[in-house]
Amino acid sequence: MNNCSSSNNVLTINLGALADNYRLFEQHTAGNSSIAGIVKANAYGLGLKKVSQKLTNLDCSQFFVATLDEALELRAYDNKTPIAVLGGLAQNIETNYLTHNITPVLNTQNDIKKWQELALKQHTKLKTILHFDTAMNRLGLSVDDAYTLINDKTLFNALNIQIVMSHFACADEKDHPLTQQQADLFAKITAHFPDSQKSLANSSGLFRDNSYHFDLVRPGYALYGGNPTPETQNPMQPVVSLNTPILQTRNCKKGESIGYGATHIFNKDTRTATVAIGYADGFLRSNSSKAILYYNNQPCPVLGRVSMDLVTIDISQIQGQQPQQDDPIEVLGPNQSIDNLAKNADTIGYEILTSLGHRYKREYI
Amino acid sequence: MNNCSSSNNVLTINLGALADNYRLFEQHTAGNSSIAGIVKANAYGLGLKKVSQKLTNLDCSQFFVATLDEALELRAYDNKTPIAVLGGLAQNIETNYLTHNITPVLNTQNDIKKWQELALKQHTKLKTILHFDTAMNRLGLSVDDAYTLINDKTLFNALNIQIVMSHFACADEKDHPLTQQQADLFAKITAHFPDSQKSLANSSGLFRDNSYHFDLVRPGYALYGGNPTPETQNPMQPVVSLNTPILQTRNCKKGESIGYGATHIFNKDTRTATVAIGYADGFLRSNSSKAILYYNNQPCPVLGRVSMDLVTIDISQIQGQQPQQDDPIEVLGPNQSIDNLAKNADTIGYEILTSLGHRYKREYI
Repeated sequence: MNNCSSSNNVLTINLGALADNYRLFEQHTAGNSSIAGIVKANAYGLGLKKVSQKLTNLDCSQFFVATLDEALELRAYDNKTPIAVLGGLAQNIETNYLTHNITPVLNTQNDIKKWQELALKQHTKLKTILHFDTAMNRLGLSVDDAYTLINDKTLFNALNIQIVMSHFACADEKDHPLTQQQADLFAKITAHFPDSQKSLANSSGLFRDNSYHFDLVRPGYALYGGNPTPETQNPMQPVVSLNTPILQTRNCKKGESIGYGATHIFNKDTRTATVAIGYADGFLRSNSSKAILYYNNQPCPVLGRVSMDLVTIDISQIQGQQPQQDDPIEVLGPNQSIDNLAKNADTIGYEILTSLGHRYKREYI
Repeated sequence: MNNCSSSNNVLTINLGALADNYRLFEQHTAGNSSIAGIVKANAYGLGLKKVSQKLTNLDCSQFFVATLDEALELRAYDNKTPIAVLGGLAQNIETNYLTHNITPVLNTQNDIKKWQELALKQHTKLKTILHFDTAMNRLGLSVDDAYTLINDKTLFNALNIQIVMSHFACADEKDHPLTQQQADLFAKITAHFPDSQKSLANSSGLFRDNSYHFDLVRPGYALYGGNPTPETQNPMQPVVSLNTPILQTRNCKKGESIGYGATHIFNKDTRTATVAIGYADGFLRSNSSKAILYYNNQPCPVLGRVSMDLVTIDISQIQGQQPQQDDPIEVLGPNQSIDNLAKNADTIGYEILTSLGHRYKREYI
């Protein structure tokens, strides 16, 4: 149907830039650590199939997803690369992991018990990842759980613990004390698992300190172009750009209002454009009266509320060639990163990515 | 793949309730106005195919979508019902409307000119909807444009203007003065189009005043269960409910933090649950530390930041049966409407609907 689409409504996903980012991880880890492909949430909204295939071409040797469904989808594209499910062992359907060669990340003693029972039944040392919580208090075995295991290895002696992992809570904040505390606790616990690969660092952790790299790093956001170290210039290449067409331009008069709730009232005559993006496209409603879009590299502030399918911008200040119906407006691109857009909407670039809607024409380059 | 899904992660879409809502519109309009099916943005996120088929069964005789792509998708399911595209005439591909029997809503003089040229070329009076802007300043012909047309009917004499329409900006706010002003202006302009159907009211307009109904009402949000008159009890039936499973429960200690950024620090020992929903599922990150979820009809406040795939809740106050791994947590349902959830996230229920993610098992009842 794309050949019928309005040609300017385009989300471009630069797989070459993604590859550059992956290679930067390789440089940073100096080949001492492997690099996992974090492709959960449809590869952060950018397309599980295309992204995973690109990563496989780069010799990525381990994928992580959030759910069993995501793992099954990925397995359909890739019958070889190890796939791990961060969300744990989905209950009552444990055999699905076996059938499709998918490794659960075990977060609870209950998960370990069920997986061990299955291993004993199958007479196979089942591939397993253990997740130790070191401060997130989200998923993972508690420190008490960890020492219960360490003190009674029969609890998991039918399992092949390939990887032991944890996850940073605050590594995006430079010098946050929790980061080193987590790393220390992780090292202490995992010393009891000498035969397993150790994995701790997310995107930020990878760039904070080499001592966080261990055997396997798990950068997600930075792979997709997000800034892993927000206090410095972004070392990553942008992966997404997004342009949306002008549907209409108009001259609004002083005293008139614009949009739902009439929240913006013009204090002078203003030329505006209405463009074909709204919150149903993942252009968050919290961008209302806040975000900036770009025409020909010139800023156009959003006026009033974002609607479901539309947003209105101020084009009064545009110099030179004037915006016309069907001209492209930049939402993400050379003038605006995912981190920039997120800041205006009081969120993080991760949510910008995972919210990217389904009405764009997606082009992979 | 659904048979492999974790069984408790379920978005239920009640098409019976949707039908009840449609019938309530019929009662309100007392059969004097037709009721259009507003199915843009994938039927507000609930599924274009299922929703449109249900509406067709209810004798809905006119659909509205936002984009030509949406119209083409809908046309593939329904080769009969008139479909109108609110976003206007997509440029340079005007013949696609003809080929697939899709009616553009013309918002600009340029649109009218192009559509008229095509009509003359085809020797056919092309079906047309004209949109007059009466205060939104978003899409639609300005008042000046309107009188240009009224004063020179040759500008559109090759077109069959089936419907003339406008759109309310503030009808959700009781007694907002703009609403009556818009209705008056609309009546004045459209008096010059005696042979066309007149359409003004959205969900809120439909419930505000019978004089806003004209020939065709266009309720969207209320069809999907949203409250069209926020200052009163919702007259609509809820259409969506959403449950997500607990992945893990844990005991967090006083002084510990939870989640990214360690934004929530426990001031007492607290029992928590981590559930399988995050902003990648459309559970907006602005719900962080704000939203309430429900276990067994009892409230569980969100603790700390919403993650991409997970959120943590406080289950310390739960009475009776205690939450366990795999138990369902209510996100939307008897205890929480789309309007309620939206309020906590500083948005509107429309965005709750259109953000509903793609990792849920969707069940239509």
